[in-house]
Amino acid sequence: MNTEHIEHIGIAVKSLEDSIPFYEKLLGQNCYAVEEVVEQKVKTAFFKVGETKIELLEPTGPDSAIARFIEKRGEGMHHIAFSVKDLEGKLKTAEESGIRLIDKKPRKGAEGLDIAFLHPASTFGVLMELCENRE
Amino acid sequence: MNTEHIEHIGIAVKSLEDSIPFYEKLLGQNCYAVEEVVEQKVKTAFFKVGETKIELLEPTGPDSAIARFIEKRGEGMHHIAFSVKDLEGKLKTAEESGIRLIDKKPRKGAEGLDIAFLHPASTFGVLMELCENRE
Repeated sequence: MNTEHIEHIGIAVKSLEDSIPFYEKLLGQNCYAVEEVVEQKVKTAFFKVGETKIELLEPTGPDSAIARFIEKRGEGMHHIAFSVKDLEGKLKTAEESGIRLIDKKPRKGAEGLDIAFLHPASTFGVLMELCENRE
Repeated sequence: MNTEHIEHIGIAVKSLEDSIPFYEKLLGQNCYAVEEVVEQKVKTAFFKVGETKIELLEPTGPDSAIARFIEKRGEGMHHIAFSVKDLEGKLKTAEESGIRLIDKKPRKGAEGLDIAFLHPASTFGVLMELCENRE
């Protein structure tokens, strides 16, 4: 499959309030959006570095996947998201080539993108997201 | 500090031989370089996705930092590298703002870049590298 660019890097943090000021200083810019994704039980904050976004993810409850990630591994890099075209076709190709899919079909993620996750057990330990901007 | 773009994402793998074919299929391209960085006890393999590289890191011995990372956390995302200008100045600014530096001065990394790492204890759990291409 062809990937266009890295759409974003997801980073698990305990608190947006604590981490946003650090990233604003590091990246020399203001956070441009904060959005809650209720379905995923996270609050997200975005920065743009070149063509790639930094997406900070704060869990909104103890049963959030991000809360469990932080509990197990601590704060840190959580996933890489690749921008693709024809997400449905890409998922089919991925599954046919033996990659285990977390999402068999695209669903809605932050910023209105269609998204689907690949399971890290079949991607050498990296949680990968494929995203398509169809707007 | 201002960052230009994400230069690369470093991913720890047990074996380049096993993981390169997976990434070639995923990214729809061939690995364009394999390079050993003796000082860091790693063998690296590179892909380019838009303006960002994917850098796979295989440890060359059990005392490599990458070997210890894999032993502790398994294969997966290891660090993010930001492209900057005036790396020495950026390190000074970072230190003055309370960020703990792993490298107080730039040193040579893969692909001839000047690099320096920031300690994850002061960056919300993310091992960060700053790189400057002075060639």
